[in-house]
Amino acid sequence: MINKISRCLISVSDKTGLDAVLEILKKFNIEIISTGGTYKYIKEKNYDCSEISSYTNFPEILDGRVKTLHPKVHGGILNIRHNKIHQKQMKDNKIQNIDLVIINLYPFENKLKEKVIFEDMIENIDIGGPSMLRSAAKNFNNVTVIPSSNFYDQLINELNTNNGATSLDFRKTMANETFNETAFYDSLIANWMSNQNNIKFSQKKTIPGRLIQKLRYGENPHQESCVFEIVNENKGFSNLKQVQGKELSHNNYLDSFNAYSLVNDFNVNEKVCAIIKHNNPCGCALNDNGLLAYQNALAGDPTSAFGGVVAFNFEINEEIASKLTEKFYEVVLCPKVNDKAKSILAAKKNLRVLEYDLPKKNHYLSATFMQKTFLLQDENIFLTKEKDLKIVTKTKPTTSEIKNLLFANQVCKHVKSNAIVICNKNKTLGIGCGQTSRVGSSKIACEYAKKNFPGEILGSTAASDAFFPFADGLESLIKLGVKSIIQPGGSIKDKDVIEAADKAGVSMVFTGIRNFKH
Amino acid sequence: MINKISRCLISVSDKTGLDAVLEILKKFNIEIISTGGTYKYIKEKNYDCSEISSYTNFPEILDGRVKTLHPKVHGGILNIRHNKIHQKQMKDNKIQNIDLVIINLYPFENKLKEKVIFEDMIENIDIGGPSMLRSAAKNFNNVTVIPSSNFYDQLINELNTNNGATSLDFRKTMANETFNETAFYDSLIANWMSNQNNIKFSQKKTIPGRLIQKLRYGENPHQESCVFEIVNENKGFSNLKQVQGKELSHNNYLDSFNAYSLVNDFNVNEKVCAIIKHNNPCGCALNDNGLLAYQNALAGDPTSAFGGVVAFNFEINEEIASKLTEKFYEVVLCPKVNDKAKSILAAKKNLRVLEYDLPKKNHYLSATFMQKTFLLQDENIFLTKEKDLKIVTKTKPTTSEIKNLLFANQVCKHVKSNAIVICNKNKTLGIGCGQTSRVGSSKIACEYAKKNFPGEILGSTAASDAFFPFADGLESLIKLGVKSIIQPGGSIKDKDVIEAADKAGVSMVFTGIRNFKH
Repeated sequence: MINKISRCLISVSDKTGLDAVLEILKKFNIEIISTGGTYKYIKEKNYDCSEISSYTNFPEILDGRVKTLHPKVHGGILNIRHNKIHQKQMKDNKIQNIDLVIINLYPFENKLKEKVIFEDMIENIDIGGPSMLRSAAKNFNNVTVIPSSNFYDQLINELNTNNGATSLDFRKTMANETFNETAFYDSLIANWMSNQNNIKFSQKKTIPGRLIQKLRYGENPHQESCVFEIVNENKGFSNLKQVQGKELSHNNYLDSFNAYSLVNDFNVNEKVCAIIKHNNPCGCALNDNGLLAYQNALAGDPTSAFGGVVAFNFEINEEIASKLTEKFYEVVLCPKVNDKAKSILAAKKNLRVLEYDLPKKNHYLSATFMQKTFLLQDENIFLTKEKDLKIVTKTKPTTSEIKNLLFANQVCKHVKSNAIVICNKNKTLGIGCGQTSRVGSSKIACEYAKKNFPGEILGSTAASDAFFPFADGLESLIKLGVKSIIQPGGSIKDKDVIEAADKAGVSMVFTGIRNFKH
Repeated sequence: MINKISRCLISVSDKTGLDAVLEILKKFNIEIISTGGTYKYIKEKNYDCSEISSYTNFPEILDGRVKTLHPKVHGGILNIRHNKIHQKQMKDNKIQNIDLVIINLYPFENKLKEKVIFEDMIENIDIGGPSMLRSAAKNFNNVTVIPSSNFYDQLINELNTNNGATSLDFRKTMANETFNETAFYDSLIANWMSNQNNIKFSQKKTIPGRLIQKLRYGENPHQESCVFEIVNENKGFSNLKQVQGKELSHNNYLDSFNAYSLVNDFNVNEKVCAIIKHNNPCGCALNDNGLLAYQNALAGDPTSAFGGVVAFNFEINEEIASKLTEKFYEVVLCPKVNDKAKSILAAKKNLRVLEYDLPKKNHYLSATFMQKTFLLQDENIFLTKEKDLKIVTKTKPTTSEIKNLLFANQVCKHVKSNAIVICNKNKTLGIGCGQTSRVGSSKIACEYAKKNFPGEILGSTAASDAFFPFADGLESLIKLGVKSIIQPGGSIKDKDVIEAADKAGVSMVFTGIRNFKH
């Protein structure tokens, strides 16, 4: 099943690496036919080449929109070489075999990133290219297809190994890569058009991933894993720059994303630090003084912080860097590390340091995969402001309590459900996360607060990610010394819950917005 | 920008609904050109139609592999109607406009589900169809494209509304749907080929989703959500049949998937029941008696079970159904509900009852999305068996302890990290989940066990999803009365942890397999 190649069709938008291919084609006396710009390039490099229009006897028309969409091209590619009827038709219609197809497509992806105008995007939708690629890939038994310059080295190697021919294995692999390429290409176009048309969910929705990196392993060592980027116009989480340290692991990515989401829910004029472990924050603090923001976040649960991901929404300086090096962390994540801080962090060779551009508030979809099913939903980007609060108790929260309530609520949004977060002075005192009952999360939050901040509990505030189904969860908070509560409200038992707060002289506000995170 | 339609090209693999389209085309005197089977169908229905080969003056060749790949077809579609150069070239080359393109593709997806042989799959890769669809979609300013019979009603309505023409909005929407369609089509082919070639991760990986259902809302009421199916050969989670009850919510799907994964990790000859709440099991039990399996699972945490998802790996009968109706659950999930049980469950109108085919052990990839980045990894399908265990303590576990250890370990795999599960007699006594520290999870598991099973703690077993970093988490389990421990091992402190077990006369086994779940 080794196929000798006599004739090759080349049509490439990007000429990178083409010279080496031309040289190998010449070496094996492979005839070249080509189109427009590629034809000119090949001739300039002094290789023999004929124009596709002389091969088809049909002119290139409509500004190049139609040049290769011709039966002589597609017949040349698609005919089954051992099929006698096909071969008679080839002869009758004077069609010659095309054995090798080398194409790369109009750069739709680059134009997407350059954000060119709509009409230019449309002109960069390649029609002829994908058609030839798909024809050649379908007929991989007879034809070799090269859908990207990434595969030139493999082609050259293959031709050298097989004396100007290719193996079936190679052709099959390239056919596979070709459909990966055309699927990806059309997925970019489809999703771009949907954005233009403001269509969020369509009957058929394809998600185009480009491999960024193969990871050492997945969530656990016995699982393989890779990280992919979804190509689109927006900047987002994959817009990270690793400044130093070991390769990011699968779980580093998970924790870093949660850390990044949490700190970016705060305004850039508020300095916030969060420490994430096993996908949950174990401490978070807001402070005008960046160092204090870090130290207060760490104090939230110094035990769990070990080996965690520390995230900031501000540039970190040498003072913070020094303090960071006193502990063991897996990842530090921030918009920027200043030069002095960089050299301090460099002492911890394994520590991964990531810088990120402060993102615009883009609206992303989030997906959850469950085998062959996936859920696609809006990201939870809603941020509760003071104006959204409805005070439901006789006691009203003070101005400083309101500030703390909003802080607690914003952290709570990033804690796995059931979530209870106790705060005081813009720092977390206790976080109860991931429990199957709300009262269970309340108790955990209380225990952390009692253990780590015995002197600061009195007058603290607490947030719940969903309503209290009964007064019990609330009561353990009140017993602890919490003075003000923020929660969505909406339970049929709201009346009981409000009564319990009123009885204790505690204030409570409803947000109307649930923040489950599963 | 309303475009009058003079000429239409039709090439459809599936003829469903075509008659109504033919009637409307006739009504507005739209000329039809067509190919092979579609041409025959149209003529049999007594509509005027000309063959594409007489339009192109080129025969259909290579068993239909080449029939529409012709400049007269693509020029007819792609020319810009207001461009004078284009129009001169159209005239010079005797090309007529094609204003409407109605195509559905070779049924690659159906063939995938029918699992036909490789060669038939290849023959069902459509080449001409996607080329014309893409040409027409690119030129949506001038051309109307209909990529599926799903849009026939909209086309008919549009033509009636605009007196035989179409609006720009409609053409743009259809262009969008066309790229959704071609991206999806090539993604199916690419992923099928990758499966054939045993390639798990490629440089470009496109995930094809087909909308199953728009949900009322997402994880929270202010988020929109839809559920999609990834089309492939395998049966999997979306292979569910809803027997009764309200529409599934986003969070029902999440919980149901975790419930399904957990119970399907057990053999069909072992009856297991699990109750899931907020994505974590709150109780799980194995028993030859199905009713006891349910009752023991419920006893694990009756408070959290309220509003949970109950899953079984066996058919449920009237006895179990009666007991289920005594409580409030959101979802019941099992391979089958017998007829008597069905009528009993029917009394709870809102209760969602799902049946599923027992899946073959397929190997899926699981994905986690983080804005424009996603992690793709193997599902954690590894199941630890007795032969995998390494006893590391002086005290050896008894035969019955080993059975309980394996049970605890298997449940623990489905609990969010850090996870500690205490079991006795094949049921969970306490589950510590989702904590940022292991000692935290140990304490929670102990508290549940003490509260719900004070009489059964002594002699119980416990599983940890990852190694104990220190002896502290272990010590709280020993203090509770746990007699045997299962964990991956691998900490630099393993020696201390083993010593602590030895000192207490507790047995411990290492699995070598970590089971993080984030």
